[in-house]
Amino acid sequence: MKINTNYQNLKDNYLFAEIARRVNEYKANNPSADVISLGIGDVTLPLPAACVEAMEKASAEMGTTEGFRGYGPDHGYEFLSSAIQNYYKRFNVSLELKEIFVSDGAKSDVSNILDIFSADNTVLIPDPVYPVYLDTNIMDGRKIVFINANEENDFLPLPDKSIKADIIYICSPNNPTGAVYDREQLKAWVDYALDNKAVILYDAAYEAFISDPDLPHSIYEIDGAKKCAIELCSLSKIAGFTGTRCGYTIVPFDLKSGDISLNAMWLRRKGTKFNGVPYIIQRGAEAVFSDEGFKQCMQNIDYYMQNAKLIADALDELSIKYIGGKNSPYIWLKCPGGRKSWEFFDYLLNNANIVGTPGAGFGENGEGFFRLTSFGSRENIIKAVDRIKKLDF
Amino acid sequence: MKINTNYQNLKDNYLFAEIARRVNEYKANNPSADVISLGIGDVTLPLPAACVEAMEKASAEMGTTEGFRGYGPDHGYEFLSSAIQNYYKRFNVSLELKEIFVSDGAKSDVSNILDIFSADNTVLIPDPVYPVYLDTNIMDGRKIVFINANEENDFLPLPDKSIKADIIYICSPNNPTGAVYDREQLKAWVDYALDNKAVILYDAAYEAFISDPDLPHSIYEIDGAKKCAIELCSLSKIAGFTGTRCGYTIVPFDLKSGDISLNAMWLRRKGTKFNGVPYIIQRGAEAVFSDEGFKQCMQNIDYYMQNAKLIADALDELSIKYIGGKNSPYIWLKCPGGRKSWEFFDYLLNNANIVGTPGAGFGENGEGFFRLTSFGSRENIIKAVDRIKKLDF
Repeated sequence: MKINTNYQNLKDNYLFAEIARRVNEYKANNPSADVISLGIGDVTLPLPAACVEAMEKASAEMGTTEGFRGYGPDHGYEFLSSAIQNYYKRFNVSLELKEIFVSDGAKSDVSNILDIFSADNTVLIPDPVYPVYLDTNIMDGRKIVFINANEENDFLPLPDKSIKADIIYICSPNNPTGAVYDREQLKAWVDYALDNKAVILYDAAYEAFISDPDLPHSIYEIDGAKKCAIELCSLSKIAGFTGTRCGYTIVPFDLKSGDISLNAMWLRRKGTKFNGVPYIIQRGAEAVFSDEGFKQCMQNIDYYMQNAKLIADALDELSIKYIGGKNSPYIWLKCPGGRKSWEFFDYLLNNANIVGTPGAGFGENGEGFFRLTSFGSRENIIKAVDRIKKLDF
Repeated sequence: MKINTNYQNLKDNYLFAEIARRVNEYKANNPSADVISLGIGDVTLPLPAACVEAMEKASAEMGTTEGFRGYGPDHGYEFLSSAIQNYYKRFNVSLELKEIFVSDGAKSDVSNILDIFSADNTVLIPDPVYPVYLDTNIMDGRKIVFINANEENDFLPLPDKSIKADIIYICSPNNPTGAVYDREQLKAWVDYALDNKAVILYDAAYEAFISDPDLPHSIYEIDGAKKCAIELCSLSKIAGFTGTRCGYTIVPFDLKSGDISLNAMWLRRKGTKFNGVPYIIQRGAEAVFSDEGFKQCMQNIDYYMQNAKLIADALDELSIKYIGGKNSPYIWLKCPGGRKSWEFFDYLLNNANIVGTPGAGFGENGEGFFRLTSFGSRENIIKAVDRIKKLDF
């Protein structure tokens, strides 16, 4: 048999392995050091009680003849898709039930959605970026063009009309930079996509962190987006579902290539290569959108955002430049003293026993930048901030 | 953007839609008819109590600071992969932990595994067949060659050395025919694959229904298989996980293309495009392999196999030819009276109010055959069998 040789074009992703290596080395040499991680992209607070109760109840149901459920519907259970449909009404976005597909998370679907597109497409990816966008397209052998996200454009690049792209990735609030597009900027992307008959893959995984009422949560808040955009979202960050696995993907009926409905193609893909999200998990996900569950989710998000504020305030005090941290759990800072990303990593580890993520790991434009996350415990954030304030940059 | 035009080569799968249409029409015209389905491939018994308890406990854990789990390991949790490793010892198959990948079911992985192979491979698929093998390869544009499963070979085709294939699908016990390969027959396939540098995708989803001690449960019971086969399995049928979603895929370290490890490629694929099976579900899956859980699973399988025996005994009494039903939940019968599959469907629906699945829906060689399943309730099976016995074929 012949293997998919595109895999040989993948770069080994050393970022988190290299972080672990340096941290372990430091700990071995400094066994009493109290090392605090502000590097993780994973949440730490337990699941909301409403979700836990719903999953306990659904587990028990599955043990009864009346309550047992076998194969579920290809779109996901309607109790969940209608909860998602209702959620979008908050953003004044009206969706049809069959435009919503329950997924096992944004990472799976942001990758799998590529199945319905030809390998012969040019893909536009911002740099720095969540590595999955890049790697999945390398695996398929697509032509990739990067668009620079940098200080000059506040890490929010706008379309360059001289570039002809077919598939465009937008992540807002952004991972890793925490930057968030406003309506006018997103409108520029929608117009560009419509002009180029391109499709936007809009990763809204962090939308729940947006508190500024003027910022859009969904690309469908922008006129014309239903004709050019697929939106992918996750419950990982809104509800702490990183280990519970549920999300959703929206493929509007208006999104077509000639006469061909992308919604129909995606339904065929889902029906052929996937057998749905566990019933128990879909019940847990439904609870996220209940009054009680949503209140609990928002309490957790407030907790993380207060963590972010503690970090941001310290950086302000130290006159360290950063973006994010206001409508995003990520803080993207410019390494003080003109340090490179890994230099600053070592500086912070050695002098404050704090671990973060070097921006250079997310792409060329990340060099000289550094990502801190607000997903730690309050206790650790306070300790970390105190240590950072004592540093002499 | 350009779509994946291979999707236009997919045939609409009318099988189950057409069954539903005919059944609904019949019910509309005969509102008092007590229609019994022996057509479904889905299980009906509730989950084993051990699995339910494990998932209730894991759900509760996720609501506590100490018990909460975020992103899990790419291979799945070791508590589960070591349970699977132990399970294989029953078959005298020794696996390394990192050869086992926890999946969200065989359907997902039997499709996703194709990502690591070039589109430029010739695929060998038995006819009749589980439609997913065919459709996923059409989606990728691979060349497909069918191998005939028919009465002459007891629906167990053996390699044809004049055909050069790169990727070979084997499903044993088979869906839809219920036929099971013996060791010698599987050895012929392994030898063929080794000779042709081909890979076997071995779908073992129904292995737990094998009661004959001479029949292999795993392809790795055959010498040489670790150099040429990937095994895909599911907890859907052994433990009723059709709506709970967990399975596993085995990619041996010895399976290579030149110097390139397919295990490493699959790990990269999993790490890039998937974020694992929910922790709660993995705990439920672990319970399948506990002493108590396994006993409960086997009780359910015994129940289904007693159903199968009731059907098989009736067919014997009526001198209707069939295979399956002994080491498989499926019974594949030759339509009596020389009827075609859909003719027999209508005959059975009209004369006995019983619904089955026309064999023609699974491929050309299925014409004139019919699939009955043993997943119904005992009460319905007894009623159905009584009705069948009264028919005048």
